[in-house]
Amino acid sequence: MTSRGRILVINPNSNEAVTAAIDAAARPFRFADGPEIACVTLSEGPFGVESQKDADSVTMPLRRLVDEATDVDAFVIACYSDPGLQVCREAGRGPVFGIGECAVATALARGDRFGVLAIGRRSIARHMRSLRQTGAIGRLAGERSLDMSVAQTASGEGTLHRMIEVGRVLIEQDGADVLILGCAGMARHRPALEQTLGVPMIDPTQAALAMSVGTLLAARGVSPIE
Amino acid sequence: MTSRGRILVINPNSNEAVTAAIDAAARPFRFADGPEIACVTLSEGPFGVESQKDADSVTMPLRRLVDEATDVDAFVIACYSDPGLQVCREAGRGPVFGIGECAVATALARGDRFGVLAIGRRSIARHMRSLRQTGAIGRLAGERSLDMSVAQTASGEGTLHRMIEVGRVLIEQDGADVLILGCAGMARHRPALEQTLGVPMIDPTQAALAMSVGTLLAARGVSPIE
Amino acid sequence: MTSRGRILVINPNSNEAVTAAIDAAARPFRFADGPEIACVTLSEGPFGVESQKDADSVTMPLRRLVDEATDVDAFVIACYSDPGLQVCREAGRGPVFGIGECAVATALARGDRFGVLAIGRRSIARHMRSLRQTGAIGRLAGERSLDMSVAQTASGEGTLHRMIEVGRVLIEQDGADVLILGCAGMARHRPALEQTLGVPMIDPTQAALAMSVGTLLAARGVSPIE
Amino acid sequence: MTSRGRILVINPNSNEAVTAAIDAAARPFRFADGPEIACVTLSEGPFGVESQKDADSVTMPLRRLVDEATDVDAFVIACYSDPGLQVCREAGRGPVFGIGECAVATALARGDRFGVLAIGRRSIARHMRSLRQTGAIGRLAGERSLDMSVAQTASGEGTLHRMIEVGRVLIEQDGADVLILGCAGMARHRPALEQTLGVPMIDPTQAALAMSVGTLLAARGVSPIE
Amino acid sequence: MTSRGRILVINPNSNEAVTAAIDAAARPFRFADGPEIACVTLSEGPFGVESQKDADSVTMPLRRLVDEATDVDAFVIACYSDPGLQVCREAGRGPVFGIGECAVATALARGDRFGVLAIGRRSIARHMRSLRQTGAIGRLAGERSLDMSVAQTASGEGTLHRMIEVGRVLIEQDGADVLILGCAGMARHRPALEQTLGVPMIDPTQAALAMSVGTLLAARGVSPIE
Amino acid sequence: MTSRGRILVINPNSNEAVTAAIDAAARPFRFADGPEIACVTLSEGPFGVESQKDADSVTMPLRRLVDEATDVDAFVIACYSDPGLQVCREAGRGPVFGIGECAVATALARGDRFGVLAIGRRSIARHMRSLRQTGAIGRLAGERSLDMSVAQTASGEGTLHRMIEVGRVLIEQDGADVLILGCAGMARHRPALEQTLGVPMIDPTQAALAMSVGTLLAARGVSPIE
Repeated sequence: MTSRGRILVINPNSNEAVTAAIDAAARPFRFADGPEIACVTLSEGPFGVESQKDADSVTMPLRRLVDEATDVDAFVIACYSDPGLQVCREAGRGPVFGIGECAVATALARGDRFGVLAIGRRSIARHMRSLRQTGAIGRLAGERSLDMSVAQTASGEGTLHRMIEVGRVLIEQDGADVLILGCAGMARHRPALEQTLGVPMIDPTQAALAMSVGTLLAARGVSPIE
Repeated sequence: MTSRGRILVINPNSNEAVTAAIDAAARPFRFADGPEIACVTLSEGPFGVESQKDADSVTMPLRRLVDEATDVDAFVIACYSDPGLQVCREAGRGPVFGIGECAVATALARGDRFGVLAIGRRSIARHMRSLRQTGAIGRLAGERSLDMSVAQTASGEGTLHRMIEVGRVLIEQDGADVLILGCAGMARHRPALEQTLGVPMIDPTQAALAMSVGTLLAARGVSPIE
Repeated sequence: MTSRGRILVINPNSNEAVTAAIDAAARPFRFADGPEIACVTLSEGPFGVESQKDADSVTMPLRRLVDEATDVDAFVIACYSDPGLQVCREAGRGPVFGIGECAVATALARGDRFGVLAIGRRSIARHMRSLRQTGAIGRLAGERSLDMSVAQTASGEGTLHRMIEVGRVLIEQDGADVLILGCAGMARHRPALEQTLGVPMIDPTQAALAMSVGTLLAARGVSPIE
Repeated sequence: MTSRGRILVINPNSNEAVTAAIDAAARPFRFADGPEIACVTLSEGPFGVESQKDADSVTMPLRRLVDEATDVDAFVIACYSDPGLQVCREAGRGPVFGIGECAVATALARGDRFGVLAIGRRSIARHMRSLRQTGAIGRLAGERSLDMSVAQTASGEGTLHRMIEVGRVLIEQDGADVLILGCAGMARHRPALEQTLGVPMIDPTQAALAMSVGTLLAARGVSPIE
Repeated sequence: MTSRGRILVINPNSNEAVTAAIDAAARPFRFADGPEIACVTLSEGPFGVESQKDADSVTMPLRRLVDEATDVDAFVIACYSDPGLQVCREAGRGPVFGIGECAVATALARGDRFGVLAIGRRSIARHMRSLRQTGAIGRLAGERSLDMSVAQTASGEGTLHRMIEVGRVLIEQDGADVLILGCAGMARHRPALEQTLGVPMIDPTQAALAMSVGTLLAARGVSPIE
Repeated sequence: MTSRGRILVINPNSNEAVTAAIDAAARPFRFADGPEIACVTLSEGPFGVESQKDADSVTMPLRRLVDEATDVDAFVIACYSDPGLQVCREAGRGPVFGIGECAVATALARGDRFGVLAIGRRSIARHMRSLRQTGAIGRLAGERSLDMSVAQTASGEGTLHRMIEVGRVLIEQDGADVLILGCAGMARHRPALEQTLGVPMIDPTQAALAMSVGTLLAARGVSPIE
């Protein structure tokens, strides 16, 4: 491990604006002595991961990036669909965290039944397959789509308003008591959503950063009790 | 929230040595600008939480402690059985993390099937009931007892040797690829176990600290991207 | 065992009117040679068990009551949330039946999918956690709230009408073919509800009495076949 | 309902000795004012229900018996495989209890994980299919065969010894904390097994009698509280 | 095995028109060298299998038919409720396929979540019990009734229109991406439904024929690679 | 659809000997008027799919092959790990069958609990993740490794002997009553294994061929009943 430890957060799409938003989400997790957190864009990635093809197209490039990384102590794959998670773990270069998996795990420790806000409908079946694989699908209250394009979600006010609207349905109709933002790069809306909706709101990138930072801190060991 | 944020870690048993070990586990999670982490002993607690009576005896004292706490932004209940978790959440004084729940959630994001090292046999049925409640019991490879007293586990070498022995059975016979230390106060053995056994080893206190620190950091919000 | 056997039914709230209603539900279960059935009020209990705090506040008093009981062959905890069930079992003073657990078990033997009538919304999440723990949540058609106060439910006509209304939704929309009255002390409405709704209606106290009386009768043994 | 209520317990096999043993198991459930309990033999039944053919051969005769019964308020099908349970319920002549279903339901209210003692291996797959249908298979610790013929089990000492032996394996290796006798007519061994093995031992006929007697008693209604 | 192999498809109801429709569904599965496929009517069967009594009334006649069959290499029970499946398998006369089980199995390999079109409401609870037994109920999007009589479904246009209507609800509201025709003898509507609804549409008889033909072809063995 | 219909079976590894064995498994499924079955090798594939990297490396080449295929009515991906299944389905070029998924689905229709013979240990965790995703993992008796290299399995006698040995453990210890050959290209051992072990033995390629042939035959439609 490097002295402070170093986390590489990989945005698997090639949209630099998303990487910048991920980097912003990471800012509160940077400390003087804490692990370094670098956010990079997968240049081979599609502009957004919306289809299964998009997701599968990045698995081997992600693996190569992981294989070639030097001075990295933990990896975060910053796409809610967790593309390439297993193949990157297999590389044996250090812990690999998928933000989707970390968000669901964190939601299990914050409430009873979780709801997910998805950008579009197409992703929901893909997320459901992942969730069945986790074995925790019994805790899902529901996943609902914002029915927005990535461009729309990037623009501001309208997005927040729509998120609140869909979040209310997840809480009131589906019975969710904790919500997950089902994509990377929306962390700036997290505090407002949490305050308005009154339930814990999980940003998946930050959930993964909490776990990866925690893993590197724990790796520093515990000095004997004097 | 206080300026840095403050986490109160409560050891529900009255054994100060365990609180000291919890405090040692917390040390790597303390940073200049990071949340303050205070570890306290529940004076009304039993000397160890071994029976259901021990667990149930601390729920109301824990609630009182939470109700009366001032300047606390998040709570951690530092006993693997998560006594009082729901009643403390109900207090509405801030997020409450149970180290058992956090350890299982973290294990789900580190491997495929998790194993648990329990101090004694009596706790296993209690843990199984909790685990059925999480809905994630399908990911459990197995839980096995060290068959040691708390006094024995506190003493060193012998404990580590026994943990390695039982950990190997969980990995080789039960198929675990990630392990959880099923009690508080054993974090000092974590690095050696992880290195010897070759699978991620989760200390539950540290898993809860990662999540609670992450929650407070995320609460700081994300400044707009310039 | 005492000659006839003796069952202690404990109302964990301090509302004597509820104890009286429980005692009324027990009347048909009293026979000349059958087990004695005594109904007592937990004086330390809250006036009603509505919150998690209410539920957790009675676990230790229940345990003490069980520990100190003499000439008791089986215990019934007469609150649908089954507070203190595990800790009272651990006392080793005889079988302990929780009316919530017994009601669900009985419903499994009466129909295909069960519905639950809850007094208020607050209790539902607590019941869901218990139900996930039983492993039988796949048989739940739904749980719906009467949205009444305990005072209102105690008053008569209006309660029955509301129960019929909510029961119909559980049957027609949720697909329940057996219903559970999700609280103690409502047994007097059971026959009318069953007749009006046309599906088996389970009173939890009576479900627990059936099992506890049965357990004591079975304990008398079976004389050899002549 | 007849004045006291009447329960018809049907032994679906034509072995009168088994009916006599069932009748013996019913004896403690007969009271001065309690429901009458009549035990009858299905004359068309096979000598024992060992195969699926045996089980399926009795469904229509059981239905006819139920259709033609007069003055019966509840039915018990006294074979652990619960043959004809659904078709007899469909007759709409009153509640129908299957002893297998009642035994499992009762076990859920007595312990955490249940074990089943089966007479022979052939029945286990059939029982597993039923158990998957109940949705409660997650609570099964294991089912193990005595590997005895019905003739052998009828004879005494040897049976008890073998039951203790197999029961110990279910408890110690499989983790059961409550056991079910997986056939009708063995109730006379129940008390000795319970005492020797130290866990609750459920006789399925008695479990069904407890529920059916309870159902008829509850049907008497609850007089208003004076 | 006979030289080509022979499959006996049994319609368990005595409605010859249904047998003719089953035979029509089988036509595309008949080939010059392929297995012979004979469709027969169970003369003892009811005119339609609508109740549990109907279903249970055919199990023993089906077993006799299987026991007495000569020159048959595989059996298909052509009723969506799979009556007599286990007892016919037990006969040991060759593989026995239930069209309900085969339809569900095939749906698992064609989509993510399946919907079922049932003729009437009465059958749904029966199908749900079967589905819980398969262990694959987590993949069910929903089952909805056409609310038609068998006579109505036999008549044409109106049936197709109603199927499309209910199919749309299963897709749009329940989230199904593959549909099953929940009865035998409707295969003629399959292509039009598939084209109109845009998701794979499974006819259960054809699903069972695919598996049974495949089983007989596989039984021919694989000559060594030259 | 081409007149007869055409199935493209793709071996995702570049080992031509495996393609030849797959082609041999397909031979019994070729008929005069039946669908054409072409078996091709994915030239970009690794020599064998043993790691997650191997599996992920073929997903995009498989999608390209599917995208560019002409005159193909159904696709079969002939690797037990089902690489690229979702992304190939998304192409919208026709039904895509994964041999792993088809083998499990077929096993559900042949027995109660299935066992899987894996070539090596590394694949088992990968298969388990897939199986959890199917939702049918409750029907798994066990998966056990032959602990052989692909080269060894290709050689004959030794392989069969080892398969019988491991198959017996799956049946006798794990309780399987139907077995799956957990890789492509072993169909030649199927009949001998089935005969020796006495339970249905599923070759996954043949399971997928049965379903894909059936799908194309069903697509021919059903002429109206004259």
